[in-house]
Amino acid sequence: MTANNEIGTIEDIGEICNLVKEAGALMHTDASQAVGKIPVNVKDLGVDYLTLSAHKFYGPKGIGALYIKKGTPLFPLIHGGHHEEGLRAGTYNNLGILGMGKAAELAFRDLAEYGKKMSGLRLRLRDGLLDAIPNIVLNGHPEDVLPNTLNVSFPGAEGEAILLSMDLNGIEASTGSACASGSLDPSHVLLATGLGPELAHGSIRFSLGWGVEENDIDYIIEVLPPIIARLRSMSTVKE
Amino acid sequence: MTANNEIGTIEDIGEICNLVKEAGALMHTDASQAVGKIPVNVKDLGVDYLTLSAHKFYGPKGIGALYIKKGTPLFPLIHGGHHEEGLRAGTYNNLGILGMGKAAELAFRDLAEYGKKMSGLRLRLRDGLLDAIPNIVLNGHPEDVLPNTLNVSFPGAEGEAILLSMDLNGIEASTGSACASGSLDPSHVLLATGLGPELAHGSIRFSLGWGVEENDIDYIIEVLPPIIARLRSMSTVKE
Repeated sequence: MTANNEIGTIEDIGEICNLVKEAGALMHTDASQAVGKIPVNVKDLGVDYLTLSAHKFYGPKGIGALYIKKGTPLFPLIHGGHHEEGLRAGTYNNLGILGMGKAAELAFRDLAEYGKKMSGLRLRLRDGLLDAIPNIVLNGHPEDVLPNTLNVSFPGAEGEAILLSMDLNGIEASTGSACASGSLDPSHVLLATGLGPELAHGSIRFSLGWGVEENDIDYIIEVLPPIIARLRSMSTVKE
Repeated sequence: MTANNEIGTIEDIGEICNLVKEAGALMHTDASQAVGKIPVNVKDLGVDYLTLSAHKFYGPKGIGALYIKKGTPLFPLIHGGHHEEGLRAGTYNNLGILGMGKAAELAFRDLAEYGKKMSGLRLRLRDGLLDAIPNIVLNGHPEDVLPNTLNVSFPGAEGEAILLSMDLNGIEASTGSACASGSLDPSHVLLATGLGPELAHGSIRFSLGWGVEENDIDYIIEVLPPIIARLRSMSTVKE
């Protein structure tokens, strides 16, 4: 992954790509979470393949793209018609393609402004939570991180309970990834970063976007501390 | 296929399904071309799997559905997230799903009216062309056929040339399938029905829909005969 969907950590794909090339292999990166949030350039990364998904940068759902470096082999998964030079059978989703193109154009145009606004909001949220709630744990890389993603563990409080309480107050966030929503297993990503199952269970992912303003951040910082305090007082989980 | 996309022939899927079951195999039918044009009922057909595609019945492109009979095995082609009970990874195309649902509802509601209107237009076109143009060949089953599809060969005239001339007169049709458009090979479907390559090359598929009215049919019957006559006079192809 160019950037992780749960914790926002940006990987050094260029360096990984060098190692992969030294081993004589081909390199694919899933840049779904990165495109539209940080600059992504297939030539700079040196990858052979790169995937992206339109709904991650305000385009329609149900459409994505695969970059293939010229001359790199590719074998189809879906057979049938001769669409896309035989690489993927199926009638083109024209509206999806057009929507993705327009969304990509706008995301590229606004990339610097997006980064600036989201970084500011993210730091405001991070520092506000650090100030207002004792013993929280910030997950993911402290600096090499997407501007819009903040993943926080609240020891002594359970993630799903935090989500529900926030939802009742009009705040929407997530635990883990959308792909695994409904699952009660702790996030494999958080476990891989070294977090224990209890902390992984008490983690929340805040995803910021164009619709979020400073007063929304301030509202979260105001509403969340009593929620966490109440859940911690009810909890039998040891910190 | 429940119904063929190029010639409109409706297969006896129920009978094929019986043979398949006797042989101890599982039965899938691609009903993309049939759903919304004729009644399709998975229980009547007895199939284990059935696929359909929304854009074939006025829904959005990029979305389809797979029916799986309860208890029938299925193995995913696309791995990753746990979406759709692990059968197909990928964020749901919500708008596509909603659009397909609405389109299916309307297609089901209007199915009888659709069949009546298209059958009438199709017979008007078929009989008009038979009257106005000598030596034409009707392709596909004469009766077990979709109400909106008419596939005709014009011996001595080449399909692509007919298409271009019709297009200049505002009439849109196709040769062969959209999946193979741009290909210069004769249609494998027409060859399989016993047509020689020359006749297969001179075939046109007319696809009718809600936007077509009787005066459009009469316009085709007026415009097409001189086009065919001119192409035949230019052609060196033996009839």
